[in-house]
Amino acid sequence: MNETSGGAGQHDHLVLFMPSGKRGRFAAGTPVLDAARSLGVYIESVCGGRGICGRCQIQVAEGKFAKHGIESRADHLAGVTATETRYRDKRGLADDRRLSCAALIEGDLVIDVPQDVQVTSQVVRKRAESRRIPRDPLTRLAYVEIGPPDIDHPLGDTDRLIAALVTEWGYEGIVVDTALLGRVQEILRVEGFKVTAAVHESPTGPILTGLFPGFRDRLYGLAVDIGSTTIAAHVCDMMSGRTIASSGTANPQIRFGEDLMSRVSYVMMNPDGQVAMTAAVREAVNTLAERAAGQAGVALDEILEAVFVGNPIMHHLFLGIDPKELGFAPFALAVSGPLDFPAREIGLALPPSARVYTLPCIAGHVGADAAAATLAEGPHRSPETTLLVDVGTNAEIILGSELGLVAASSPTGPAFEGAEISCGQRAAPGAIERVRIDRQTLEPRIKVIGADVWSDEEGFAEAVELTGVTGVCGSGIIEAIAEMFLSGILDADGVIDGTAAEKSARVQANGRTFSYRLWEDKGLVLTVSQADVRAIQLAKAALYAGVKLLMDRQGLETVDRIKLAGAFGSYIDPVYAMVLGLVPDCDPKNIKSVGNAAGTGARMALLNRDYREEIERVVRQIEKVETATEARFQEHFVNAMAFPNKVDAFPNLARAVDLPQPKPGRDGSGPQRRRGRRNR
Amino acid sequence: MNETSGGAGQHDHLVLFMPSGKRGRFAAGTPVLDAARSLGVYIESVCGGRGICGRCQIQVAEGKFAKHGIESRADHLAGVTATETRYRDKRGLADDRRLSCAALIEGDLVIDVPQDVQVTSQVVRKRAESRRIPRDPLTRLAYVEIGPPDIDHPLGDTDRLIAALVTEWGYEGIVVDTALLGRVQEILRVEGFKVTAAVHESPTGPILTGLFPGFRDRLYGLAVDIGSTTIAAHVCDMMSGRTIASSGTANPQIRFGEDLMSRVSYVMMNPDGQVAMTAAVREAVNTLAERAAGQAGVALDEILEAVFVGNPIMHHLFLGIDPKELGFAPFALAVSGPLDFPAREIGLALPPSARVYTLPCIAGHVGADAAAATLAEGPHRSPETTLLVDVGTNAEIILGSELGLVAASSPTGPAFEGAEISCGQRAAPGAIERVRIDRQTLEPRIKVIGADVWSDEEGFAEAVELTGVTGVCGSGIIEAIAEMFLSGILDADGVIDGTAAEKSARVQANGRTFSYRLWEDKGLVLTVSQADVRAIQLAKAALYAGVKLLMDRQGLETVDRIKLAGAFGSYIDPVYAMVLGLVPDCDPKNIKSVGNAAGTGARMALLNRDYREEIERVVRQIEKVETATEARFQEHFVNAMAFPNKVDAFPNLARAVDLPQPKPGRDGSGPQRRRGRRNR
Repeated sequence: MNETSGGAGQHDHLVLFMPSGKRGRFAAGTPVLDAARSLGVYIESVCGGRGICGRCQIQVAEGKFAKHGIESRADHLAGVTATETRYRDKRGLADDRRLSCAALIEGDLVIDVPQDVQVTSQVVRKRAESRRIPRDPLTRLAYVEIGPPDIDHPLGDTDRLIAALVTEWGYEGIVVDTALLGRVQEILRVEGFKVTAAVHESPTGPILTGLFPGFRDRLYGLAVDIGSTTIAAHVCDMMSGRTIASSGTANPQIRFGEDLMSRVSYVMMNPDGQVAMTAAVREAVNTLAERAAGQAGVALDEILEAVFVGNPIMHHLFLGIDPKELGFAPFALAVSGPLDFPAREIGLALPPSARVYTLPCIAGHVGADAAAATLAEGPHRSPETTLLVDVGTNAEIILGSELGLVAASSPTGPAFEGAEISCGQRAAPGAIERVRIDRQTLEPRIKVIGADVWSDEEGFAEAVELTGVTGVCGSGIIEAIAEMFLSGILDADGVIDGTAAEKSARVQANGRTFSYRLWEDKGLVLTVSQADVRAIQLAKAALYAGVKLLMDRQGLETVDRIKLAGAFGSYIDPVYAMVLGLVPDCDPKNIKSVGNAAGTGARMALLNRDYREEIERVVRQIEKVETATEARFQEHFVNAMAFPNKVDAFPNLARAVDLPQPKPGRDGSGPQRRRGRRNR
Repeated sequence: MNETSGGAGQHDHLVLFMPSGKRGRFAAGTPVLDAARSLGVYIESVCGGRGICGRCQIQVAEGKFAKHGIESRADHLAGVTATETRYRDKRGLADDRRLSCAALIEGDLVIDVPQDVQVTSQVVRKRAESRRIPRDPLTRLAYVEIGPPDIDHPLGDTDRLIAALVTEWGYEGIVVDTALLGRVQEILRVEGFKVTAAVHESPTGPILTGLFPGFRDRLYGLAVDIGSTTIAAHVCDMMSGRTIASSGTANPQIRFGEDLMSRVSYVMMNPDGQVAMTAAVREAVNTLAERAAGQAGVALDEILEAVFVGNPIMHHLFLGIDPKELGFAPFALAVSGPLDFPAREIGLALPPSARVYTLPCIAGHVGADAAAATLAEGPHRSPETTLLVDVGTNAEIILGSELGLVAASSPTGPAFEGAEISCGQRAAPGAIERVRIDRQTLEPRIKVIGADVWSDEEGFAEAVELTGVTGVCGSGIIEAIAEMFLSGILDADGVIDGTAAEKSARVQANGRTFSYRLWEDKGLVLTVSQADVRAIQLAKAALYAGVKLLMDRQGLETVDRIKLAGAFGSYIDPVYAMVLGLVPDCDPKNIKSVGNAAGTGARMALLNRDYREEIERVVRQIEKVETATEARFQEHFVNAMAFPNKVDAFPNLARAVDLPQPKPGRDGSGPQRRRGRRNR
């Protein structure tokens, strides 16, 4: 390992790049940028070594790196060049930074590649997400100077540009997007045949997708998660990786049907249904993109790359594909693989040549959104077994570890979103989101979206004065029913116990069943009825049966981590999820809400080509389980109706809360294989 | 060479394919189709060896082929298979034909690959052009059966189709045209997941561009030559290579300007000029394509490949590119290279996924039409020196041999097309196209387009009764002026000789110059004026100076062959072209009209990928000469004003006609290098 001292060999200096850890030996005099490229280390360079862009900054990590056998010193780079001095004087460069295009290797080095080189005065918003996504985008900027046309060598201007991109940037086989052809000559002439090209390295080879006069180092991307209910868009700075604006809007397809299946029905019943819904979602995406770009201070024509995710039906409708085959078995996707095509093909308000990427769908009911969430949460990267659940009208479920993933979708219906519940409503200000019931008096305490205090705390009346208390949202109904169970109002089978009526007037008979009056506000009475409990039981049993099916497939009895994705998952309390038996037993501290994981995955695929390759590979390898045809699904479903359920033991849950009527002697037989934990 | 007798080696049978001449050794039991593919011999197969399509027919050439060391016998193929018998019974197969997918090699063979396998009842028109173009199209049909979707393996239908095209047909990396995505599921279900795919092998890899239910072996292509005046379209049967319909129409851009430069001016003066002209030409092309397809009995959606050629300005306008840079030096082309893109990009009335190919342009005034003519006439394939001239508003000139080509454009102006001539008109019924003048009496005889008899023959009056005699077209004015020169009315400098007025009243004074009265008809007097002669002199001097410049560049004093392309070239008499000095001296029998060579070249590029590669390579290698900046152009131009001209000797011309005032002692000095004749 101690081979650092300078010999006279051809490649006598060891250079280690961080954070990638890639290393190689290089001859003295090699520019650091060239060394990085030869190792596949991504260092941005827009100007191609002209010392204009300053994006290729690096930093020498000084010290003895015994493990690598490297003594790294700043003076192992040749002296600061005139190019660097000029750049430092003109645009500023930190003392410890060098331009890798100009800095020559003269000794062993450990090079830090900063992940976010701040150069020009960029618009950076506060709301940038905390997660740092390593950048290696498919679309990059390349500055070239091609000089004026030569009458004696009448190669077309576009062809000369292509030749320069091949010679100077190595974009062998590059083609020009047809939409740009008519603009090349004019753009070339704005700043004397000096231009910055945007090149997208598509699966079929490099494509010129943008051209700007002169030198330029601004480039933006768009990541969009098209949900059945909500569409969320993020504008990312492709040069820094930062998310500089995020915006959301309701999916206007709601007017064609609240849930997915009603939209598929609409398509089946109406000859122009698909066209109308496609137009609606595209229009909404365009409006949203415009708004997000406006917030970011970015023009739409600076956005040359976009990534879209969504469930299979949203995915198909957005692409203009009739989703009707997804409405019945065998739930055949028209296309499941990833797509890469120009924005104009789907009428996006981006430049016609901007590139669109859609992540692959996993199965007929497990979409590109689930793929994106998988990419974001990376169960396949971990030795621990992770259960990743995105709850919506369908629950998309991914389970597994680095040893393999299985996926399924469960037909939970819309109950978790507050629909089909007598007192239910969407999560919005005024909705009850938290519930506690006194075990003795059966009196409730509530918390409302938009108010910071509980109903038994001072200032509650003022806090809800504007919104009122209008209904119970998904997480509220989960807590209400879980608390009803914990306080004995509900039995383990989900029956509202009439004897509780003796303890509290809130429990009242409704014909042959009982209900629990949760809240009264200005004449509005919010009641949890037996039917409401049944709706939640059906939903949670469907979810749990799907999860259990996957655990069977993996030979698992427990999971190490549970990640709840999506809006619903963001608000749900892990313990209550367990009380209801929504999820299997797990240490509550390992149950996490992961927010809009699909959106995060979309941004990852936007900013780094390796993530695209990764999720494409993972999706091909995921084992798909179709709940509709699995005999055991029905069995699990029936058993999962109880609270928490009759399928599993809940030791973690028992430690976390006092469960009423604990059931001893639970069935603990069967193989306790725990794949995916070997490497812990 | 005598290695034919069967050994026991691994690859013990020598197989020679004709007409390609490709040969190789193959193990016994190899299907002939596989052997052909491994050698790159193109044998069509639509069904992939299922014995359905019958397109892969071959024939054994029996006999001893001593030169190749092969004794070829029909029984060197294993016995007729059940597949072949079934095909023969069902659809018919000539006795001496075998299906190469089923026929197994069992001995040395010479295999004839028929170039036009007639299978189904195809529409074949009489007007099919005589030239046989060897076929190896970029778009091919591939039949696959993928079976219904499997609920437990939820790969998208499109992805399953792709997998089959990769596995069964080797289309690795194939992508689906976005425009097809929304239709794949429906088409797959028409005939139980049996489909015929059309796959285009683009420069960036294979693309699925068409999909038809069930088995299909019809596929058509469109070749279009967009001239400034006329647009010509040909519909070709891609399965046989035949041209099954041809149609032409006037270029509607004429309303924006008669000649090219006036159209460029229109673009420069009118903000929406380019858009209007682009729309006009595209609309005309669509109408024409529809008409030609109708004549061929072909639906537009069966046309999945189209090739377009045109001069640089037509090329740019058709592609939607502003041609204004072509209006002034350095005449910069926006794009000169070949393009391959979907038909929808330019609003063609073909399927949106149909592929368009445009041939490369050679230089700012030497377009894709000249490239296509070069491809058709192949000067680069011949050891002889060929001069290829396409005369229009600009003359596009290609000169050279297999040792290299040079190209230039000369600004001939529109005189050759009958414009700027007092008695001129376009070539149309009623126009004088042939002229003879009696050397003694100076009386003319004429022939008119649409009439089969000369004016001094019986029946002339009746023949022109309907049309009348309305003007003189391009070839007519050439002959008129040449005959005036040969009969002494014109001197070698192009001056109408006043003394001739003494011999004939047809020569009359017009102020200070004279004119020749060629014809009178119903009050219309057609006169060749001194100004007319000057206009032709300027045009022919420009053409000749361009030719001479290229001959200089090639170090040539003479050429072996002259090919005149385009409508003008079709009617011109080689001897008169020499009398005027339009072309250099050449044996008249080696001066040929080659008709619409550009259209032929377009059809070649449509039907065979090798021709695309060939012309792309040749165009890159052509040496371009810009007449506008060549000092000697002016000198040649001045010298070329005389009849025939003062630049060259015309021994062939002198042998063909009695030239007045032969000039002895012509300058014969200078190097007599004759490149391009070494191999004769």
